[in-house]
Amino acid sequence: MATREQSLTEIRRDLHRYPEEGWTEFRTTALVAEELDERGFDLHLGPDAVDPEERLGVPDEERLDAALERARELGSPEEYLERMEGVTGLVAVKRYGDGPVVSVRVDMDALARDEAEDDDHRPAREGFASEHPGEMHACGHDGHTAIGLGIARELDEHGGFDGTLKLFFQPAEEGGRGGKPMSETTHLDDVDHMLALHLGLGEETGTVVAGYDRPLSNAKLDVTFHGEPAHAGGQPHAGRNAAQVLGAAIQNLYAIPRHGDGKTRVNVGQVRSPNAQNVISERAEFRIEVRGETADLNEYMLGKARTVVEHAAGMHECEHETSLYGKTTTFECDESMVDAVSEAAEGVDSVTDVKRRKEFGGSEDASYLIRRVQENGGDATYVGVGASNVAGHHTAYFDIDEDALEVGVDVTCETIRSL
Amino acid sequence: MATREQSLTEIRRDLHRYPEEGWTEFRTTALVAEELDERGFDLHLGPDAVDPEERLGVPDEERLDAALERARELGSPEEYLERMEGVTGLVAVKRYGDGPVVSVRVDMDALARDEAEDDDHRPAREGFASEHPGEMHACGHDGHTAIGLGIARELDEHGGFDGTLKLFFQPAEEGGRGGKPMSETTHLDDVDHMLALHLGLGEETGTVVAGYDRPLSNAKLDVTFHGEPAHAGGQPHAGRNAAQVLGAAIQNLYAIPRHGDGKTRVNVGQVRSPNAQNVISERAEFRIEVRGETADLNEYMLGKARTVVEHAAGMHECEHETSLYGKTTTFECDESMVDAVSEAAEGVDSVTDVKRRKEFGGSEDASYLIRRVQENGGDATYVGVGASNVAGHHTAYFDIDEDALEVGVDVTCETIRSL
Amino acid sequence: MATREQSLTEIRRDLHRYPEEGWTEFRTTALVAEELDERGFDLHLGPDAVDPEERLGVPDEERLDAALERARELGSPEEYLERMEGVTGLVAVKRYGDGPVVSVRVDMDALARDEAEDDDHRPAREGFASEHPGEMHACGHDGHTAIGLGIARELDEHGGFDGTLKLFFQPAEEGGRGGKPMSETTHLDDVDHMLALHLGLGEETGTVVAGYDRPLSNAKLDVTFHGEPAHAGGQPHAGRNAAQVLGAAIQNLYAIPRHGDGKTRVNVGQVRSPNAQNVISERAEFRIEVRGETADLNEYMLGKARTVVEHAAGMHECEHETSLYGKTTTFECDESMVDAVSEAAEGVDSVTDVKRRKEFGGSEDASYLIRRVQENGGDATYVGVGASNVAGHHTAYFDIDEDALEVGVDVTCETIRSL
Amino acid sequence: MATREQSLTEIRRDLHRYPEEGWTEFRTTALVAEELDERGFDLHLGPDAVDPEERLGVPDEERLDAALERARELGSPEEYLERMEGVTGLVAVKRYGDGPVVSVRVDMDALARDEAEDDDHRPAREGFASEHPGEMHACGHDGHTAIGLGIARELDEHGGFDGTLKLFFQPAEEGGRGGKPMSETTHLDDVDHMLALHLGLGEETGTVVAGYDRPLSNAKLDVTFHGEPAHAGGQPHAGRNAAQVLGAAIQNLYAIPRHGDGKTRVNVGQVRSPNAQNVISERAEFRIEVRGETADLNEYMLGKARTVVEHAAGMHECEHETSLYGKTTTFECDESMVDAVSEAAEGVDSVTDVKRRKEFGGSEDASYLIRRVQENGGDATYVGVGASNVAGHHTAYFDIDEDALEVGVDVTCETIRSL
Repeated sequence: MATREQSLTEIRRDLHRYPEEGWTEFRTTALVAEELDERGFDLHLGPDAVDPEERLGVPDEERLDAALERARELGSPEEYLERMEGVTGLVAVKRYGDGPVVSVRVDMDALARDEAEDDDHRPAREGFASEHPGEMHACGHDGHTAIGLGIARELDEHGGFDGTLKLFFQPAEEGGRGGKPMSETTHLDDVDHMLALHLGLGEETGTVVAGYDRPLSNAKLDVTFHGEPAHAGGQPHAGRNAAQVLGAAIQNLYAIPRHGDGKTRVNVGQVRSPNAQNVISERAEFRIEVRGETADLNEYMLGKARTVVEHAAGMHECEHETSLYGKTTTFECDESMVDAVSEAAEGVDSVTDVKRRKEFGGSEDASYLIRRVQENGGDATYVGVGASNVAGHHTAYFDIDEDALEVGVDVTCETIRSL
Repeated sequence: MATREQSLTEIRRDLHRYPEEGWTEFRTTALVAEELDERGFDLHLGPDAVDPEERLGVPDEERLDAALERARELGSPEEYLERMEGVTGLVAVKRYGDGPVVSVRVDMDALARDEAEDDDHRPAREGFASEHPGEMHACGHDGHTAIGLGIARELDEHGGFDGTLKLFFQPAEEGGRGGKPMSETTHLDDVDHMLALHLGLGEETGTVVAGYDRPLSNAKLDVTFHGEPAHAGGQPHAGRNAAQVLGAAIQNLYAIPRHGDGKTRVNVGQVRSPNAQNVISERAEFRIEVRGETADLNEYMLGKARTVVEHAAGMHECEHETSLYGKTTTFECDESMVDAVSEAAEGVDSVTDVKRRKEFGGSEDASYLIRRVQENGGDATYVGVGASNVAGHHTAYFDIDEDALEVGVDVTCETIRSL
Repeated sequence: MATREQSLTEIRRDLHRYPEEGWTEFRTTALVAEELDERGFDLHLGPDAVDPEERLGVPDEERLDAALERARELGSPEEYLERMEGVTGLVAVKRYGDGPVVSVRVDMDALARDEAEDDDHRPAREGFASEHPGEMHACGHDGHTAIGLGIARELDEHGGFDGTLKLFFQPAEEGGRGGKPMSETTHLDDVDHMLALHLGLGEETGTVVAGYDRPLSNAKLDVTFHGEPAHAGGQPHAGRNAAQVLGAAIQNLYAIPRHGDGKTRVNVGQVRSPNAQNVISERAEFRIEVRGETADLNEYMLGKARTVVEHAAGMHECEHETSLYGKTTTFECDESMVDAVSEAAEGVDSVTDVKRRKEFGGSEDASYLIRRVQENGGDATYVGVGASNVAGHHTAYFDIDEDALEVGVDVTCETIRSL
Repeated sequence: MATREQSLTEIRRDLHRYPEEGWTEFRTTALVAEELDERGFDLHLGPDAVDPEERLGVPDEERLDAALERARELGSPEEYLERMEGVTGLVAVKRYGDGPVVSVRVDMDALARDEAEDDDHRPAREGFASEHPGEMHACGHDGHTAIGLGIARELDEHGGFDGTLKLFFQPAEEGGRGGKPMSETTHLDDVDHMLALHLGLGEETGTVVAGYDRPLSNAKLDVTFHGEPAHAGGQPHAGRNAAQVLGAAIQNLYAIPRHGDGKTRVNVGQVRSPNAQNVISERAEFRIEVRGETADLNEYMLGKARTVVEHAAGMHECEHETSLYGKTTTFECDESMVDAVSEAAEGVDSVTDVKRRKEFGGSEDASYLIRRVQENGGDATYVGVGASNVAGHHTAYFDIDEDALEVGVDVTCETIRSL
């Protein structure tokens, strides 16, 4: 747990071994907090780092408590756990000079999935695969967290820069649950420049993408339908059939009209009606994701989806509940920051290829932080750091080339110094 | 028009030639009224025979006016047309003795369909096919009306009976539109016995069925959906799509849960969305029929159908209107009346076969009159008079064997005298 | 395991404590076999009692092996386990005299559900609740098996009767999986009279129903749809969406046309598409149950359901697999046997109320055995033995009044002796 | 009919008064042919101008015959009517010099709609509104045809140009039915430059748009479903319900997955199931339009639509027929031609505003001719000629500012001379 003695690779492997899903990153937050505290950063933990009211897709109390207890058992310093007050996330600030406030945002959460256990998978082969069943760092956030620490180390140990560094260690990026609550604090108010970064994204180690554009906005809605059971043979009319609601809702969700102003998406997952086939379904559920090329198009889809869900339930006299699980918006990287990163990257030895901009295929809730900075007059970019992934993001065999950690640190620090 | 000189067959052919759809039976009503007036019956015409407020499926004013004008042009006596006040239907009463009040119900309306014009069809061959395009007596109501007159003639000319005769000439049986409004008047309050009758029903001439049971209750609902047009290529999101409502509604109407207590039915017809395929549909419509083994089951289906329609519209943000087009209920014939008709029929020479009871396959709004009589303590039956039909009811080649007219008159009068 | 020393109540409680789901009744079969073997019955075990090829809804090998191993560990005699050759079920025969062959059918399987564990539930309170998580005797088959043994004891120990006794210990009644394969053997060929019996069915202890009629025929179909995953944001067109198939299939299954000839039913349960909401569903599944008032109506529904499933898959370019999980047919009890049971029951002291016949609400695969006996010229009935259930069949708190066990034995034996 | 004496405005008004829908432009074709014949053009009429086998959405024989007869009655020269052999369309060629082959494409067909008859509508007020009920020039093709003649006149009477003029008078543009068959002839093989033009398109008179880009590809599919009628009350199972097919098809058509590669569209119109609500539908139909940002995306949608239609029918055991009614593809205008038109337009006095390029909102089957020219190495553009429309294209009050006719002629001739 004495991370200062550990290399970035060692830290990354430690995090990989003890992955924590969104809003349960107690150990991860504490681990980061401990080193940055020792380095003299001002720490803003938990409710001081994210607006608790704005959190989306928070697990239930029991789950949170169990995760906290697990962190405790794994030796996380009680001091930081307490300061979190049950809320994960960290903003760490250090002033090195009078110049601009530069922020870096990294995310910390793992995915809800099992990790491959066979020898084809390096983490398993080399003994640092997940020890938490059902959780896995399959999107590189372990590396992002390590890079965040690496940036602090690099600047701290090599003279800082003429300005203030603000590190945002964001919880719950998966699902788009942590970006908005982190953007709703005051920490971004004075930020002049922001870099968010991501490992992998299909690029080889040595490649840096200085800016990504136009991720689709998205929103995730969890829906439960409540009906009334009845014997399907004797009293088919006496129930209120939540499985029929599923049928009507699925059909009409995919049939939400396309929009003339741009791309829209809708998808349904985790569909479930557990009733026996001789009983009218009393409960059914699914999870929806909608997307739009713009925030407006995303709202269009979300509104339509809610309408379909409401009337599918009404059609079969069922009740329904919805809960917004996560949400992201879109962004555009500023040309000024793309310039800065490109130029900095050209000067880093381990960088072999610099791409100025690419379209961002998926969705990202760094978008909320980026837009907040831009609204306040700052500029921002989202940087891709190639990591030669051997398997796709979110899959059981996902891994990163750890050489990419230094690339990420160096490009970021070089950029920060140049601003 | 001097019907007293005409045989029943001549009258039936006259009516067949000038068929009038439901609520437009101006000429038919006037024709009947004229003879019964001459015979000294008390006449209750139009709003005095049916409750105008309870009428279902009434054509628009323009259509009613045109039909009235047509009746005028065909020589209907102005006196009766005026007394109808735009409402068809007639109750005619004559007291012959102190005994029970016996009523007979016949219906008068034609169907909305073209009649066959080729020589295979006797009415065409012998020159009495419909002269009203789009209207045809394809269910024998021309014969029923003639039988109603025949009963009046027979009793009037052969000594009456010890009681009071009430003849109900019902409009708009097709669709189940006239029975309920006729049952909502006071004319049934003092009725001791009622016979309703129908020609054909799959029986040969000479066969009499003394009672039918358990027609399905039904209801007909006309539905219109209002959306918003938009160009399907450029602005697919800008419309509100009434054609999509059709899809959702049709699928979910047929999926209304079966009922544990008995038979239910639902069907959709006259579906229409006239939009060009490159325009989002701004208007769609269909007509629904539901049925139930009991009045309650029919209400169950009607309620569910309304719910589906409402939420199909809501799902696609369209408005909707519904209009109840027609409605029937179920009935059971009284054993006492089945006995009376059976015995009477046995004594009629032209009757070769007497069946006591059969199940009634379709729906009938005589049900409302029958139930009203039964509620008031009277008894009632629905009698089938075989007529050797050469083609199915409601088809272009439907015709009746006119020998059945006398059978109908004789069996009914014989029964009346026996009560 | 020395059941001869145990009372019927003790045996029932032993079976209740170690419930075995359909096709895994290894311990139950062996337990019955052991006592009947000692009593000199000819035993037909496993493949000699049911046609293995005709079995429906058989669990996978792993599950069967585990259940067999469990029976072994619980001390089931190896001899009988071996003779079963992996197939449960038993026909036991003993000849007492030259008279008719009388058969009794009881079922042995438990349900796939957890049992209540609190003190409100007598089996929990008195220590004989299920020790097999996920399995419970919640339909009284533990009592049926005990009654089967009780009949053997009673006849064996009190002079037999003038004829041959054939006891059918049927596996896998739940879901309708064992009746057909048991009826496809030759054991029913010479049966003159058959009684099947069931405890509870809403009747108080002391009540006997001498015959049930017209259970709905049913069939259960398990369906899996195979699609192709794709990223719902980037490549929505690249997948083949099994969740969309669910929508189309559910909507159209419930919309299978009602049938003019009688009752039909359809219901969908255990709906599941486990894909994440940002991935096009690659796999979805559900389980269907159809029913019909007759075997033909059941086939109508099953055929239509297969058609809907096939085309719902085809519509979204998915593949599908179906597997018939269970099937029952309908039956009518013979008046002769209803007479015999009624009269016998009147003579049994513990019987307080004898009902001749009731309609059977649910479905039963004893139907296949009953019909086979009737086809061969024998007569049969299905007898209800009241058991004052404190909770509904198939629920976690289901229990039987054990006094009903003797009632069942006495009524059956009295009937057998009277035939 | 002596068009040489008529001004372009007179010709346009004559055509406006006698509009002819797609594939019935007999009078229009003959009128054009007559003047161009007199001017010494080589004429390719009917099957010599379009490939008859490739025609889409051709009206039935009866309709074609009636239109031909109508043209005859209106005085069209028999010579040209005969040469058409029942197929409309004309390619007219005249060689003025050795230079390039320049082609101009105009379309001739009217829309299937009624024209406004009140005085707010200039054609009605000034007496040249449509005399053909149900047909109207509501998209300016009357003007296009006049401009085509005007170009011939201008060049013919003012010295021609150094090259060959090929005029394509295309039939059946509405619905996208005539472009493809005209492009499948050899007439385009030697074309070096092509201009297609359209009046209006939202621009004021005096504005010229030198190029349009990326119209959506589209396809129109007419679909008929054949079921089996049955009485919905008595025999609901006996039919095969084409109305249910509508429900399943509509729902699933709109739910065709969005495509990751670009815009797609689908819409359903002219939905119809004419069955009475108490009869299972034996016939239903609708017309579909799909679109795609590219020809491939359009094919994707068309393929998916066909799959949905097939399986919606199969799901309810109905048959179906489909007929491709029309089809267009997309195009890009060549920079060289946009330059040429822009420069020429700048030099025309009546032109007040020149726009280089706009996106094309709708769909256009000139696309097939344009792409054919480009495939053969030629260049092409699609030119908009502003016409200050007082009402939207395709509406009852559509009209053009006739001053735009000369603008169209002048810009085109100026361009031709410059090539």
